[in-house]
Amino acid sequence: MNILIIGAKAAGLKAACRVKRLLPQASVTVIDRGEHISLAACGLPYFMSGDIEQLTELVTTPYDVVRTPEYFTSAKGIEVLTGVRADQIDPDKCIVSSTELATDQKLDFAYDKLVIATGASAVFPPIEGIDLPGVMSFKDAEDAIALKQGAAQSQIEKAAVIGGGFIGCEVAEAFGALWGIDTTLIEMEQRILSQMLDAEMAHIAELELSRQGVNLFCGARVNAIKKDGDKLRLELKNGDHLQGFDRVVVSAGVKPRVGLAEDAGVAIGSTGGIIVDAQMRTNIPNISAAGDCVQLTHVITGKPCYLPLGSLANRMGRTAANAIAEKDDVFAPVCGAACLKVYDMNVAAVGLTARAAEKAGFDVGESWGYFTDKADYYPEYQNLSVKLVYDRVSQAVLGVQAVSKGDAIRRIDATSTMIRQGVKLKDIRDFEPAYAPPYATALDPLHYLSYIAISTIEEGITAVSPLDFEKIAEDFVILDIREPIEVKEDPLTVSYLGLINIPFTELRSRLDAIPKKDPLLVVCAKGVRSAEAVRILQQNDCENVRYVGGGLLFFNK
Amino acid sequence: MNILIIGAKAAGLKAACRVKRLLPQASVTVIDRGEHISLAACGLPYFMSGDIEQLTELVTTPYDVVRTPEYFTSAKGIEVLTGVRADQIDPDKCIVSSTELATDQKLDFAYDKLVIATGASAVFPPIEGIDLPGVMSFKDAEDAIALKQGAAQSQIEKAAVIGGGFIGCEVAEAFGALWGIDTTLIEMEQRILSQMLDAEMAHIAELELSRQGVNLFCGARVNAIKKDGDKLRLELKNGDHLQGFDRVVVSAGVKPRVGLAEDAGVAIGSTGGIIVDAQMRTNIPNISAAGDCVQLTHVITGKPCYLPLGSLANRMGRTAANAIAEKDDVFAPVCGAACLKVYDMNVAAVGLTARAAEKAGFDVGESWGYFTDKADYYPEYQNLSVKLVYDRVSQAVLGVQAVSKGDAIRRIDATSTMIRQGVKLKDIRDFEPAYAPPYATALDPLHYLSYIAISTIEEGITAVSPLDFEKIAEDFVILDIREPIEVKEDPLTVSYLGLINIPFTELRSRLDAIPKKDPLLVVCAKGVRSAEAVRILQQNDCENVRYVGGGLLFFNK
Repeated sequence: MNILIIGAKAAGLKAACRVKRLLPQASVTVIDRGEHISLAACGLPYFMSGDIEQLTELVTTPYDVVRTPEYFTSAKGIEVLTGVRADQIDPDKCIVSSTELATDQKLDFAYDKLVIATGASAVFPPIEGIDLPGVMSFKDAEDAIALKQGAAQSQIEKAAVIGGGFIGCEVAEAFGALWGIDTTLIEMEQRILSQMLDAEMAHIAELELSRQGVNLFCGARVNAIKKDGDKLRLELKNGDHLQGFDRVVVSAGVKPRVGLAEDAGVAIGSTGGIIVDAQMRTNIPNISAAGDCVQLTHVITGKPCYLPLGSLANRMGRTAANAIAEKDDVFAPVCGAACLKVYDMNVAAVGLTARAAEKAGFDVGESWGYFTDKADYYPEYQNLSVKLVYDRVSQAVLGVQAVSKGDAIRRIDATSTMIRQGVKLKDIRDFEPAYAPPYATALDPLHYLSYIAISTIEEGITAVSPLDFEKIAEDFVILDIREPIEVKEDPLTVSYLGLINIPFTELRSRLDAIPKKDPLLVVCAKGVRSAEAVRILQQNDCENVRYVGGGLLFFNK
Repeated sequence: MNILIIGAKAAGLKAACRVKRLLPQASVTVIDRGEHISLAACGLPYFMSGDIEQLTELVTTPYDVVRTPEYFTSAKGIEVLTGVRADQIDPDKCIVSSTELATDQKLDFAYDKLVIATGASAVFPPIEGIDLPGVMSFKDAEDAIALKQGAAQSQIEKAAVIGGGFIGCEVAEAFGALWGIDTTLIEMEQRILSQMLDAEMAHIAELELSRQGVNLFCGARVNAIKKDGDKLRLELKNGDHLQGFDRVVVSAGVKPRVGLAEDAGVAIGSTGGIIVDAQMRTNIPNISAAGDCVQLTHVITGKPCYLPLGSLANRMGRTAANAIAEKDDVFAPVCGAACLKVYDMNVAAVGLTARAAEKAGFDVGESWGYFTDKADYYPEYQNLSVKLVYDRVSQAVLGVQAVSKGDAIRRIDATSTMIRQGVKLKDIRDFEPAYAPPYATALDPLHYLSYIAISTIEEGITAVSPLDFEKIAEDFVILDIREPIEVKEDPLTVSYLGLINIPFTELRSRLDAIPKKDPLLVVCAKGVRSAEAVRILQQNDCENVRYVGGGLLFFNK
């Protein structure tokens, strides 16, 4: 059997090696138009930042063997041809015609099974001047090499990054952290990382970027990039000009690279990715697809989604291979677990954001909490801001977002597993994480957040977003239930309708001091005492009372 | 309604505060014979070690309010009476008779609902001399205070810890790490942490203890403790004498404190804990129990188990309160997730060990892997040794154990959730953890371990435990498939029947050099290449071939 794979990155090579293991008699060939095969592309920002010195570290096995075509032949028994561009698939004759780029020679590859793993390409929005020299993407090894050389040769004093998604944030950090480049990050949406985080969670990462010296512009559209002497100037839609840039990196997302597949009649989905079944098979017989060129199904919405993540690409490659070898396997719908480092802040999320859940038609509920990632008496703890998104009707868990200088990821992995199982809020109470003071609090943030959510639904103990506090405070009498020392250290600075200070420890004995008919907004440091206070106030005839979820410290790190 | 709670630690106070929130009209009283209420007992080893300076940090809210009885009255609306010993429960009259210890005054408490949260007490094995001065437990605040004072006053130069469970390991570290006490740890079983880890996983923690200077004796029974001048001497069953100890800490486990309950007719289970239903109700009307005095049900075996863990105690207290307030809640069976720090090593596990699973009647399969906790090209990665335990018949996941200087806990929390859902090996492939190079590898250790397990079951690609390698090597021809540089840096030191060095990258072209009829044992650094080599060898007529799971580095840190 001839098995041909187009694309020698994560999905393609995983599929190739796996299928050869299962079908040792098969001939397995992988072609790739580039030279940098088997490159851990997720590591490029760390190569750029200097955390990783040599690009070869991204193509080396743990045993210091470089994954060259020769390595794949000798160790894995597959043939990998670089510098070979696939030009056309003939699905009737089962032939892929291609070109050896160095010689311009035409090559035909006959296949019994074909796997398309052509990956994704950078999106360049239709902005005037986007093709100017000095404007580039950060997608491939070549981009990273060029940028790092420029930085190393002190050609880059000031740089702009257009797009505040994963890559944009990572590149901004790489510019600033190692090279001391004066960096400006421009995001079209009102918040960075908008695929992953709601506004109040993104705000914590935004504060970190600003603290670290990144000039951040959210809700800013670039109208044009202009040459300005030997520098580049960005003209924004609001009329502002940002200038003096030596480089402009466009990281406005990626799109599946599907031209080859589409031309062969492979069905493309609404997200622009190739439609595959659970065995990664396309609509064309004997043609599968895997990796960043593929459209997936979201486990919560049941709708198509596009998630170009290295971890998923690896798993898709494996499933494609298993299916070709007729081995039982299924690539299940995904829930979009993701994480990234934004300077010292660890950011992680899974499932739907509140905004995405609203768009998908859910009756969205949100809970916030400000926790510690270890026992709060353990010396090395870090604060941990977490948000839970759920459906008020079914009480299904829809998503969790976490940001911390400490451990933000653990709860995301656990939630990922829960979401796959379709758990409800009340099921979270059974969550049994490993607990010891150096690692966790006795009750997990997920426990607290589910308790908060259930008390909202069942008892109307309602929180407002910590991001809304400043905006809405003037419509409320603020009941600040912090202890006097807390108030002194961190006095309120918002405008309010009225202010009452009663420490939570005195609330039960001073209920007479509460104006029960006024709209009340209870605040404390973390939101825990406030939620309890709201309950007490409601039990004592306060009708219009809510509290600030996650408390006044929610954005503090 | 009068609600009485006996015991003012995690479970008791959680129950009290929760039930008062739900039933604001109820009178809630908590009695405790001690003075240290609401103490985070899990923090005592860190108080002892000096990580936590003052004991008050363990009884302080995050807002610097000390949780005194007055605090509970003013903030929580409940009455907490310390120094009051419950003497007898009259379940017919619904009265608890008790004694105020300071005055010896008798007090009767009438209850409508009673929650027994009497916790656990230290086990003192029947060893001669166990009652000598200088021999003590490490269970309560008093123990920690006495030991810390002794250490601070330089009264303790040399100490022995009997029992290598959680507390024993933590106390040994506290002795050595801060106080520089010459510490000996004696464990009756052949391995430390035997409730949590199998031998090969415990071995990694044992190596760490030894590296850090702890004198470790496993499989050692203490026959007698003798006074020897102003020191203590331990006489072991094997005839050895260990001497010169200023203190001997007995941490031979804890047992549920159930005398009071038992005398009142409350049913006690086979583990010695109080039998409760899913709402924490005992067999006696109006009497519930929660916390370390309670027997739980294991989610895998369906059998009774005893897990005195602070995290579970908190949740049990909440469920007991919810049930009293007739609020829907269930305390579900548990899977025993646990973790601890052993010096620089993070140790975590969930579910059944292989040994426990065998005892429970499963047809146990085991998989080992040696991974990195981050991408292996990311500078700050740590090695991560993980073991998966499963049932060969049903392919159910039974447990995971992980040890690392880096992140060992994440996969445990996720597995905990999976075990609760009764997942099979093949379901792990759907696990979707958050991935980015600073946090994880593109495929998770759990993915690899499930692949390994499935290939063992379906294709007979069989591993031996890394701990058995030295013992069995002499019965095998060893096929060392490491690269020459690896072999040079870390040559094999075991005795073997024969040895062949063929780097994995050359294996396919040098199959003729393999003695196909001999019993072959393949070794590499991490086990990954070996598993692949076994597959290739089996496809090429090697009949008796297996490999060392987790590889030669499994115990290296």
